[in-house]
Amino acid sequence: MSDPAHGAEGRSLSRWLPLIGWLQDYDRQSFGRDLLAAVIVSVMLVPQALAYALLAGLPAQVGLYASMLPLVLYALFGTSSTLAVGPVAIISLMTASAIAGMTGADGGALSTPEMLGAALLLALVSGAMLVAMGLLRLGALVNFISHPVISGFMTASGILIIASQLGPLSGLSLKGGNLLEMGESLLSGRHGVHWPTLAIGLGCWTGLILARRHLKNGVMALGLSDTTAGMCCKTTPIIAVIASSLLAWGLNLGDQNAEHGMALVGAVSAGLPVISLPSFVTNDWSGLLISALLISVVGFVESLALAQTLAARRRQRIDPDKELIALGLSNMGAGISGGMPVSGGLSRSVVNFDAGAATPLAGAFTALGILLASLLLTDWLAWLPRATLAAIIIVATTSLIDIAAIKRTFRYSGGDGAALAITLIVTLLHGVESGILAGVVISLVLYLKRTSQPHSALVGRVPGTEHFRNVERHEVETDPQLAILRIDESLYFANARYLEDTVLALTAQRPSLRHLVLACQAVNLIDASALESLEVINERMTAAGVKLHLSEVKGPVMDRLKCSDLPANLGGEIYLSTFDAWQALSVHGSHCGQACALDGVSQTATFR
Amino acid sequence: MSDPAHGAEGRSLSRWLPLIGWLQDYDRQSFGRDLLAAVIVSVMLVPQALAYALLAGLPAQVGLYASMLPLVLYALFGTSSTLAVGPVAIISLMTASAIAGMTGADGGALSTPEMLGAALLLALVSGAMLVAMGLLRLGALVNFISHPVISGFMTASGILIIASQLGPLSGLSLKGGNLLEMGESLLSGRHGVHWPTLAIGLGCWTGLILARRHLKNGVMALGLSDTTAGMCCKTTPIIAVIASSLLAWGLNLGDQNAEHGMALVGAVSAGLPVISLPSFVTNDWSGLLISALLISVVGFVESLALAQTLAARRRQRIDPDKELIALGLSNMGAGISGGMPVSGGLSRSVVNFDAGAATPLAGAFTALGILLASLLLTDWLAWLPRATLAAIIIVATTSLIDIAAIKRTFRYSGGDGAALAITLIVTLLHGVESGILAGVVISLVLYLKRTSQPHSALVGRVPGTEHFRNVERHEVETDPQLAILRIDESLYFANARYLEDTVLALTAQRPSLRHLVLACQAVNLIDASALESLEVINERMTAAGVKLHLSEVKGPVMDRLKCSDLPANLGGEIYLSTFDAWQALSVHGSHCGQACALDGVSQTATFR
Repeated sequence: MSDPAHGAEGRSLSRWLPLIGWLQDYDRQSFGRDLLAAVIVSVMLVPQALAYALLAGLPAQVGLYASMLPLVLYALFGTSSTLAVGPVAIISLMTASAIAGMTGADGGALSTPEMLGAALLLALVSGAMLVAMGLLRLGALVNFISHPVISGFMTASGILIIASQLGPLSGLSLKGGNLLEMGESLLSGRHGVHWPTLAIGLGCWTGLILARRHLKNGVMALGLSDTTAGMCCKTTPIIAVIASSLLAWGLNLGDQNAEHGMALVGAVSAGLPVISLPSFVTNDWSGLLISALLISVVGFVESLALAQTLAARRRQRIDPDKELIALGLSNMGAGISGGMPVSGGLSRSVVNFDAGAATPLAGAFTALGILLASLLLTDWLAWLPRATLAAIIIVATTSLIDIAAIKRTFRYSGGDGAALAITLIVTLLHGVESGILAGVVISLVLYLKRTSQPHSALVGRVPGTEHFRNVERHEVETDPQLAILRIDESLYFANARYLEDTVLALTAQRPSLRHLVLACQAVNLIDASALESLEVINERMTAAGVKLHLSEVKGPVMDRLKCSDLPANLGGEIYLSTFDAWQALSVHGSHCGQACALDGVSQTATFR
Repeated sequence: MSDPAHGAEGRSLSRWLPLIGWLQDYDRQSFGRDLLAAVIVSVMLVPQALAYALLAGLPAQVGLYASMLPLVLYALFGTSSTLAVGPVAIISLMTASAIAGMTGADGGALSTPEMLGAALLLALVSGAMLVAMGLLRLGALVNFISHPVISGFMTASGILIIASQLGPLSGLSLKGGNLLEMGESLLSGRHGVHWPTLAIGLGCWTGLILARRHLKNGVMALGLSDTTAGMCCKTTPIIAVIASSLLAWGLNLGDQNAEHGMALVGAVSAGLPVISLPSFVTNDWSGLLISALLISVVGFVESLALAQTLAARRRQRIDPDKELIALGLSNMGAGISGGMPVSGGLSRSVVNFDAGAATPLAGAFTALGILLASLLLTDWLAWLPRATLAAIIIVATTSLIDIAAIKRTFRYSGGDGAALAITLIVTLLHGVESGILAGVVISLVLYLKRTSQPHSALVGRVPGTEHFRNVERHEVETDPQLAILRIDESLYFANARYLEDTVLALTAQRPSLRHLVLACQAVNLIDASALESLEVINERMTAAGVKLHLSEVKGPVMDRLKCSDLPANLGGEIYLSTFDAWQALSVHGSHCGQACALDGVSQTATFR
């Protein structure tokens, strides 16, 4: 694998600041590529940033603030040259859910300044957690969120996000962190459909969908390349923003008292964010910590998968632990500069990649673009209808719903399908935090359940070879005095007793048995509980006149066993290979090779 | 295995009432054996029952009540012919700890009637949990408490029990659920050592220890058999009870106002327990449920291990799910008849076994003996010094502390040792409930950590055989164009990414590589996350011009893979055995047998 940063691994400063590596080779060409990518991404990011801030239940400018300092920090510390961080849909949804669960100083729901403070605190705490995980090299922890859980969580989040945006799109009252709450608020809502809002919303939605489907071919017909045409289409949201803002301004749609009054983004305070620590202090730290942990883990999983996919296309490598630190610092940056929790955004990063961003500097340039936008555009943004942003979110979020992946998982395995389904259902009915927690717990429970009742198989010799396979699946040679039991699992506390039961039932069924070989090629671990079980088995076998042998014990397992009394007390031997055991113990054995395999009696036994 | 009850398995009533099976063969000889065992066990149980009730912080007669109905119910439903249920040390300690954690109606500590009610509620709820687990066939759940955790928990509980009894033994103030609390109460206690109490206590302790060490030989010198002499020695506690009660009565030691005033058991309400539901209602159900769950699981683990050990000696079998129901009903019985949580007691069961108890009816006869005792002996028990009971508990509990087992575990494996040490330390410093929970959690975490970074090994052919072993541990043949990587773990979500990293690092290190074989004999599961990783690996290998092959895929794993697209998309082949792959892909292969093994180049590669 080509890995330009690899040579600098030894130098301590560049180990933590990857930019030292790539800045040495920075030239005019890279600058041009980064600048172009930054312009395109900025145009795309402005409406997304506004929309995701509103999705999180926060004022629109928070999204812009979260797209400045975090991007600069990621450019300094990140290892992906193309990942575009900033507000993203799922993290915004999780932020909304976390803030909804907090109570204010008076014990009730949070006021707007308190919500702003809570978002900053969430960003700061989840950022600090990511940095800590990075310093402790705990990047591997995210692996405990399995693919089916991510798949179910993404689809359910997509559905929740789209459902939540149907409110601003239509003027209906549709609030809450899960489908049940949304349904309740819909039934008890005082407002009906606001037709002008719905018209703007559906108009934007149709325009965006049509642009996505057909604009690319149209632009390509003008002679642009496939990639350039694709990028042009990704910037159509800004056209929807400009068009609908002009419409709202021209028709003066913002007058809430008039019949055609429509929800607009409204006054956005112009200027730059102030750097300060969050002033909000929660009275439920454990709740905050759980929310922050889930936000940081989900954000990191999403971001890392994205960064790795993009890096693989350019044959670059991503260091998970450095990514933890970079994403953590970005979030901490958001937490002290008026922002909200951020992560790597899918569509933005792909556009950044396609636009040819050469280095993380493209991200820093994007931050400059957003800064200019927030200085210059605030007057115009006041006229932007919320329905436009809702339509942008709905179109962007549809890609999260991946029915094909769900079908594939169910076809492959019932257990994985169950984990997916439970994550999906709990997320839809009980919100994002419960959903992801339920998914992680159910994955672990299913895995432990599988390993606690291990598969085992009586094996026999494949005639003419040194290979042994399941007597029930293959035509193999066996011997009534000799049973070779292949244990298909590591032996540990959860299945130690199951092993005892299996072996004792086997010997009870076969009175003619004289030798039992446990073939251990699949046993990667024998822990202290399993060792005790083996000792019990050995004692009982010896008492019943059966010799217990082991074969194919792996190096690390054998090293461990040598520290115990088992090898000394074992009734039988420990053979290097099952074939050695077969030769020593079977009536077919004793150096008869291929020749005597022909008259080997192939008999099958019933044993699960 | 001889299993008398096995033939009756089909009949539905005897399936739930094992007594129907053995009652058919009940004769005068069995009756005599059961009666003798019951007399000896009763004599032994009376002081233990009183002592363990006091250990749980309850009035002494609760121990007697808990030794009536529960024993009858176990006789009806239990599958062990020798297990003697009743109050036991660890469960009493856990009961004390659970009750200490509850608050009364006024928000403060419980009054004595409330404590009685809380004990009944605990017994009833933990009994119901056991029955539910039995009906749902969840007996295997107890396997998640590993041997090292049990070992650490037992030893720590033994230390806590002995420490808690040093108070009543000496008159010092020594209360609390862990060593820290006990130390604190000792320092802040107003009472010094009460010398007459200490004299009685130490006297009893010395007597019991001497009897245990030397009485057996003395009795055997009178011509009794080894077993009979052993049983005689087990009844010495009743002698200590009688002697110290007489002493207290003769010297009128019970007068608390006099200088020699000593803590006695005091007035025990004569008569039988009243059958009624517990009247105490807790205001912390989740706390109660956790306590009840821990009590039921620990009680069951202890009881089952004991029953299985005894059954194995007589070649009988214990059905864990039926045992759950029997122990659950016993506890529910205790909960409605003025008792406390019960379990199978070690020393009692061994005595019952040695005395020749033939059927569970011995338990029912023991219940009758306890009933007589509680009717006749209550006046006498009032004079019994608490120090005597403390000495009995200390002597009985010393066997829980098993330093040899701890040493053995540490020598065998650091991970298991860590689980043991953490359980031990947390139990000592934070009480029994935290200890057992910490142990279970740490065992699972350590297991998941081990499996999430799986061992893998590059293997080569053992010359002249079809056997393949680690290139770093054995002298084997290899081929620079072919790498055979043996994966020593099931592939699942927690290690899927680790596998990707391992394989990609391997191919990056070996530019000459053309074929990579993943030897899957130790892979017992490939879940949906790992399948995606394999697909990613396959894509990248194909792009890098390396063919990915699989070998020794097991039947159940292959069945699953056939439901996916991997076999169709795989760059290479799936071979039945690694030797087949070697023959097809290696330069040494192509039907060259032992002869060409001699010129096979044995080279080793560095790879973990």
